[in-house]
Amino acid sequence: MEKVAIVGGGLVGAMQAVYMAKKGYQVDVYERRDDIRDALFVAGKSINLALSDRGWEALAKIDLEEEIKKIAIPMRGRKIHNSDLSQNFQPYGIHDQSIWSVSRGGLNQRLLIKAASYDNCNLYFNHKCVNLDLESNTLYFDHKGENKSAAYDRIFGTDGAFSAIRSRLEKTDRFNYSQYYLKHGYKELLIPATKDGLHQIDPNALHIWPRGGFMLIALANMDGSFTVTLFMPFEGENSFESLDTNEAVEAFFEKEFPDALDMMPDLLETYKKNPTSSLVIIKTYPWNYNDKVILMGDAAHAIVPFYGQGMNCGFEDCSVLDTIMNENNNDWNKVAPAYTEARKRNGDAIADLAMRNYIEMRDLIAKPEFLLRKKIEAAFAKKHPEKWLPLYSQVTFSHIPYADAVENAKIQDAIMDEVMKMENINEKWINQEIEEFILSKLE
Amino acid sequence: MEKVAIVGGGLVGAMQAVYMAKKGYQVDVYERRDDIRDALFVAGKSINLALSDRGWEALAKIDLEEEIKKIAIPMRGRKIHNSDLSQNFQPYGIHDQSIWSVSRGGLNQRLLIKAASYDNCNLYFNHKCVNLDLESNTLYFDHKGENKSAAYDRIFGTDGAFSAIRSRLEKTDRFNYSQYYLKHGYKELLIPATKDGLHQIDPNALHIWPRGGFMLIALANMDGSFTVTLFMPFEGENSFESLDTNEAVEAFFEKEFPDALDMMPDLLETYKKNPTSSLVIIKTYPWNYNDKVILMGDAAHAIVPFYGQGMNCGFEDCSVLDTIMNENNNDWNKVAPAYTEARKRNGDAIADLAMRNYIEMRDLIAKPEFLLRKKIEAAFAKKHPEKWLPLYSQVTFSHIPYADAVENAKIQDAIMDEVMKMENINEKWINQEIEEFILSKLE
Repeated sequence: MEKVAIVGGGLVGAMQAVYMAKKGYQVDVYERRDDIRDALFVAGKSINLALSDRGWEALAKIDLEEEIKKIAIPMRGRKIHNSDLSQNFQPYGIHDQSIWSVSRGGLNQRLLIKAASYDNCNLYFNHKCVNLDLESNTLYFDHKGENKSAAYDRIFGTDGAFSAIRSRLEKTDRFNYSQYYLKHGYKELLIPATKDGLHQIDPNALHIWPRGGFMLIALANMDGSFTVTLFMPFEGENSFESLDTNEAVEAFFEKEFPDALDMMPDLLETYKKNPTSSLVIIKTYPWNYNDKVILMGDAAHAIVPFYGQGMNCGFEDCSVLDTIMNENNNDWNKVAPAYTEARKRNGDAIADLAMRNYIEMRDLIAKPEFLLRKKIEAAFAKKHPEKWLPLYSQVTFSHIPYADAVENAKIQDAIMDEVMKMENINEKWINQEIEEFILSKLE
Repeated sequence: MEKVAIVGGGLVGAMQAVYMAKKGYQVDVYERRDDIRDALFVAGKSINLALSDRGWEALAKIDLEEEIKKIAIPMRGRKIHNSDLSQNFQPYGIHDQSIWSVSRGGLNQRLLIKAASYDNCNLYFNHKCVNLDLESNTLYFDHKGENKSAAYDRIFGTDGAFSAIRSRLEKTDRFNYSQYYLKHGYKELLIPATKDGLHQIDPNALHIWPRGGFMLIALANMDGSFTVTLFMPFEGENSFESLDTNEAVEAFFEKEFPDALDMMPDLLETYKKNPTSSLVIIKTYPWNYNDKVILMGDAAHAIVPFYGQGMNCGFEDCSVLDTIMNENNNDWNKVAPAYTEARKRNGDAIADLAMRNYIEMRDLIAKPEFLLRKKIEAAFAKKHPEKWLPLYSQVTFSHIPYADAVENAKIQDAIMDEVMKMENINEKWINQEIEEFILSKLE
């Protein structure tokens, strides 16, 4: 049987290991960091992620859906915390669907344990990939100062945004690549649990404090705490650079997020301790090198986190590749280019959608007209589910290719632009006139 | 005095060495390849380049203009070879200006000799940069298998499109980078001199055979030959991939370039021997790392060759940096970011212009309407030089920043679009009505 290497044992690498092991390949997984399978994650104090349908489907195919649901918290919508301390709730789905808050560490652990359960899958930790010889498909590793190498029939680069595998492919002729950093960064903070270990605010919502140029968000953890993230420009007014003293941080939170501040007794300490991190968008083409190397997850398409789709898109890489393998009888001469063709356009589409969603989250959702528009759309979609699926639902609660969802949304946007121009739209918001207007436009 | 390193002794590196040596810095130049100062270039058989005003100005500042003029051939315009074997001549300037065909090797030689003439400038050849430690600003080299290193106050990365210095900066936080390969590539061919060492066609023109999706061009060499380049898609109909036999190559040239074929007795041999090369566009931001590292030339902004500005833009990097140093008293804390601000927008602008010029060269210039438009513009510009400088002249025969030229051209384009819609425009092409119309629009 073919020998394959998976470089990177993070979420996507561990999942891909399971998919390949399941098919009978001889799988070696190389991970730069320590083995985390025995680590005690203080339930989800690590970065939280939002699992949605594409991710769940990929997990279901390897029989992990049930197990992961046990460590995930459903969020039915956005709870918007306005400047005047009022709140709105905006459901994510039109049928009460949820996205799920889950801890990166906990999820990674379970995927690695699953991979290790196959006899034909070996996990190697503390193996840093330092080179790849493309002639012989040989990988070179630094294992605690010791040099190691091994050749493979197939190599999967699942080593994240700063992928060593991709870095090697970048040096080959006609390989397109871009890394683009946002002018905004982020810092993680914490809302602790109550003394009784309970959540201070509703755990079944994704909390957002939209403030135009910046925002605060909070996702629930299993232990009653919330992982809070401040997204803000690096420089300028209201920036990480401008918050350069304890006084400035405190004054800023008192002015912008007084209700959140009340729940964060250790704000100043955490603010100082935690790093300010950057946000990068990475695009590549192609996602394969001949039939030998395949890029998956962030190594091929790192995106900003604002649509909650980074991991879901990476998991979908695994399930789509699995389908393409089945359709092509595991003939890698066909599978590798078909994978690039199938996924590249979708990777680009979700990268752009995620960027647009940042503006939606930090700015638009605080605007009554935007909320009205979403409400009208949801009401129509609920009544005519076969005719209209809102973009957010297409992305989050369907498996429609991202690029197709973008095309569908263009038509919907044009119609909604017209609807919003109708007279007294905020009074009538959903009535027969509007319904018939939309139906006529959809003809 | 400060010690500075220049990594890359090509055209821009050698020029920057002269600029820095002239200012009294202790300069070390490291070049990966052999010393070419004593090489006998078979006069310009290497790739030809087109020097224009920006390049000449940078050469004049270091007293090399006169010397280089002696090995350069002026080209006053484009000689267009149409499919029906008819020819047109389109002057480059409105005042009979020229661009100059010059051999890369010959020019590089003279720049290196000039650099070496300074006691405070050392040249090191066969030194391949393998690493850069940004903490200590230490460079690591492989010199014929031997490891060498040295620390510098300032480092200039002039090591081309696949720069090792830039590659190190790419790994730093918030450094934007993209490499984009065209679907088109190129192959060099040759029109030899006559037995008497004369040019077979007019040496004072840049010859173009525009054919829509692809093109052939020819630039004169000092020895009577022409360096010919075929630009064409890699794949598809009329592509490098499709010309896979001697018969296919011959049939293609017979059909598309019969007049050129007559002058190329060794076509098949040369076509087979010479590689098919790719075309890449590289963009970065910023062009400096703190006050320690500066990227110049292709290392910062590799562009496609269709505006003849790659080298000129790189040379302008040197002359503009020199001006910025003078304006800021050589204070690198100010100089380095000011250089990025001054040059980045212009690098992006010329990258886009060069890409657009490919379409102009291979397609538009074969179209009567396009030539008429240029003729009207030139006639007006000649009559009102203070009011109108065509874009090509702004780019090639002025020192207007590229980005400003693009802005100016947008206004001109809008006016010319209207002019071209005037009734019977091809009959009247330049008369008082058109002149007054343009003047009124410029108000």
